[in-house]
Amino acid sequence: MNTPYYAVIFTNTQTDDLDGYDEMAQKMEDLAQQQPGYLGMDHARNDIGITISYWENLDAIKNWKANLDHQEAQRLGKEKWYQWHKTRICKVEREYEFHRK
Amino acid sequence: MNTPYYAVIFTNTQTDDLDGYDEMAQKMEDLAQQQPGYLGMDHARNDIGITISYWENLDAIKNWKANLDHQEAQRLGKEKWYQWHKTRICKVEREYEFHRK
Repeated sequence: MNTPYYAVIFTNTQTDDLDGYDEMAQKMEDLAQQQPGYLGMDHARNDIGITISYWENLDAIKNWKANLDHQEAQRLGKEKWYQWHKTRICKVEREYEFHRK
Repeated sequence: MNTPYYAVIFTNTQTDDLDGYDEMAQKMEDLAQQQPGYLGMDHARNDIGITISYWENLDAIKNWKANLDHQEAQRLGKEKWYQWHKTRICKVEREYEFHRK
């Protein structure tokens, strides 16, 4: 990835009603990968879940947010799966990386 | 937090030699909280570890990176604990939040 690009930091806590969640999460990851401007995704969950998706520009993020299948996932998330969630739209200005030799 | 502010996204994979890691991670979290301009931290780990720290501005990030105890932690991380890590410096431009009623 070449800076600048964009990151969407999605942090959340879940409810006890996770029926259908895993399938939807997988479906959304597959669908995001097909979106124009998609660059990648990182995910981990312990006490909170963190999903970071990376995008070429703000338009790519806007289009992904407006995607109809994604809108349905967002609706179900609010209705059933998430106790709380927060979304941060971020411009990645610099990055550096370490690889063990 | 009021936008704009900054996020440091630190993603990593670990080695098998985690001796001393947990203590150092706790120490660095405590120390970061005492830094000027520190706003908060999110962390989760499964296949990869994600730690996101939030800061008022770039100077606060620069000062934290240069902190001597933190430098020692960074050195040990490269020497022992991390197989790979990536750091992204991001400007948080917008954010929104959902709370279940």
